[in-house]
Amino acid sequence: MADKPSKGLADIIAASTALSDIDGRAGLLFYRGYDIHQLAGPATFEEVAYLLQRGHPPTRGELASYADEIAAGRALGSLVTECLPDVAGRQSPMEAMRSLVSLAGADDPDKDSNAADANMRKAARLIAQQPLLVASYHAARNGGKVRPAEPQLGLAANFLLQMRGSQPTPREAEIFDTCLVLHADHTMNASTFAARVCAATLSDMHSAVVAAIGTLKGPLHGGANEQVMYTLVDIRKAASDDPVGEVERAVRDRLARGEKIMGFGHRVYKTEDPRAIHLREMSRELAEAGGDDTYYRMSRRMEETVLAEKGLYPNVDFYAATVYYYLQIPTDLFTPVFSVSRMAGWTAHVMEQHADNRLIRPDSEYIGERGLTWTPLDQR
Amino acid sequence: MADKPSKGLADIIAASTALSDIDGRAGLLFYRGYDIHQLAGPATFEEVAYLLQRGHPPTRGELASYADEIAAGRALGSLVTECLPDVAGRQSPMEAMRSLVSLAGADDPDKDSNAADANMRKAARLIAQQPLLVASYHAARNGGKVRPAEPQLGLAANFLLQMRGSQPTPREAEIFDTCLVLHADHTMNASTFAARVCAATLSDMHSAVVAAIGTLKGPLHGGANEQVMYTLVDIRKAASDDPVGEVERAVRDRLARGEKIMGFGHRVYKTEDPRAIHLREMSRELAEAGGDDTYYRMSRRMEETVLAEKGLYPNVDFYAATVYYYLQIPTDLFTPVFSVSRMAGWTAHVMEQHADNRLIRPDSEYIGERGLTWTPLDQR
Repeated sequence: MADKPSKGLADIIAASTALSDIDGRAGLLFYRGYDIHQLAGPATFEEVAYLLQRGHPPTRGELASYADEIAAGRALGSLVTECLPDVAGRQSPMEAMRSLVSLAGADDPDKDSNAADANMRKAARLIAQQPLLVASYHAARNGGKVRPAEPQLGLAANFLLQMRGSQPTPREAEIFDTCLVLHADHTMNASTFAARVCAATLSDMHSAVVAAIGTLKGPLHGGANEQVMYTLVDIRKAASDDPVGEVERAVRDRLARGEKIMGFGHRVYKTEDPRAIHLREMSRELAEAGGDDTYYRMSRRMEETVLAEKGLYPNVDFYAATVYYYLQIPTDLFTPVFSVSRMAGWTAHVMEQHADNRLIRPDSEYIGERGLTWTPLDQR
Repeated sequence: MADKPSKGLADIIAASTALSDIDGRAGLLFYRGYDIHQLAGPATFEEVAYLLQRGHPPTRGELASYADEIAAGRALGSLVTECLPDVAGRQSPMEAMRSLVSLAGADDPDKDSNAADANMRKAARLIAQQPLLVASYHAARNGGKVRPAEPQLGLAANFLLQMRGSQPTPREAEIFDTCLVLHADHTMNASTFAARVCAATLSDMHSAVVAAIGTLKGPLHGGANEQVMYTLVDIRKAASDDPVGEVERAVRDRLARGEKIMGFGHRVYKTEDPRAIHLREMSRELAEAGGDDTYYRMSRRMEETVLAEKGLYPNVDFYAATVYYYLQIPTDLFTPVFSVSRMAGWTAHVMEQHADNRLIRPDSEYIGERGLTWTPLDQR
């Protein structure tokens, strides 16, 4: 029993999980016992989502069945379809994701059950649906509709196809697939924790995921990847002819004014974020392939400057920004793209919570006035 | 630093708050230092919402201005209006509340700001809007529209008017007003905690409230009040001519089967829930006024039986069920009605979190396998 609050619950163990583990000193991340460095590249997002949701790497037969579930789940429900044009015209991408996933619950055939098998089916449908929601939102706000998915393509390639409206190169699809793998789960991050708090009342998976989406929206969480890109764009605009040199000046100026540089530091990692290593390399590769590597070089200089000035390493959001930029994903969809991937973790955590549940209901420390006497209104 | 998880964060102090305080041993609840027993009856919900959101009891002038804000905020935004018929036809009440509040964010003029003054205005609008959303949902699912609110009536009376379609008696309105007062805040309950986890990423008030609604939906939280009523109705149906006697048999049978009786016990109170005292008395009054006091008498017997068998006291949900029943509120709207009241607490907690923020990001204990080697798919 603690007498004093641990602000932000730092270092408080809120749950047991078999889904992911972080060694913050060594800079290691594991999904169900597999080092993320083993998965980034060799494993597809579908394999990782299966691993998280169903407990073990799929056999070829299991993966084929799971791919069938995803293909079947890649459809917008009737309520989403009815509301999508209005939502896309009126809500920002993460507001829209919050609304659309809430509406989508109506069309899930298992929506009224928290049973393990129902949750497993819902989890696969949510994995299938989220990239389609992002792409459909983007098409709808531009007055159009998404292209049909192509059955021979995986989830990552189909997302790029449906969001951009044109085929990605095989290497682009591979890189995006690895991005999804890297973002799939991360222990008790704020959005996952919100999902577990919700699920622990025995509320349903859609409610928990909607809570997670609203939480991911915040600039101290998923919203950071967009802020990284906006910062780079701002600095480049302000630079006359030396954007890389301007980065160093701008970072020093911002730090001198006490401002936070988005995309750096993490409560859990005391060294480099293992995900950032892969994202940096993919950013470099895409930058070189694309011809204009300015944002990549700016990012490198920003990384060096922030490390020298503040001793902070880039986190997962930092190089994700330029990778997504080079993949031609609109900046305001970076956080929705995060939700496409983290859906794997959120849904797996909801299932884990429901399987061994206790209501999450902490205490609080009261710091206000005491013993006041209520005066009737007419005497105030 | 804790080494072992506190399952459900029981006894872990997750935040400091000046909003409410519970003395679980004495069975006392305070809003900003005022004992709930002083407020239940003398204070209106508008006064309590003002107290929670703005820090002190309103003067007459302040209350008049706040009432003007509420009157102005009692309107459905265009996005909600467009989607309401579809949502009402397809989603259960709490699913619909989750969707509609998410959609309503689009029409809030302060939606893009977390500044203190913007949050204060949004909080008043959310207080105004929630009863209208519940009543409008209920009208829409029956193919109709709500009656206009009446400017001389308070929030509680207008809700009953708009939900039922006919004027409540002044005493019914007073009783419902007191119900709203009693449910307005309750320290770190699960939905409030979900709202704070969301807001602590610097996400916006609507996202936090949507997370809270999804969390309140769970049967271990707000959903309990509906379960209480369904249990009473089931037992009455099963009873031939002695529903009160049948309660005792049914409770003993359920307990013998290891089932939970909804509406009893609370993690925080070790004695009677102070809110239950007022709700019991209001249930009695309405039962006697209405002519058929069967459900009240059944509730009393259930209370006696559960106390004798399990040593558990009724919580806020238990007598709220029959009070709402006697007020002619449909059972599946009991949890939405809870949200009408708890909106005061949720919004105040979001403001408190934003005013002195730190990301809420706990640790977890890893309990899965370690050191596994990823085998490529074609070797599996």
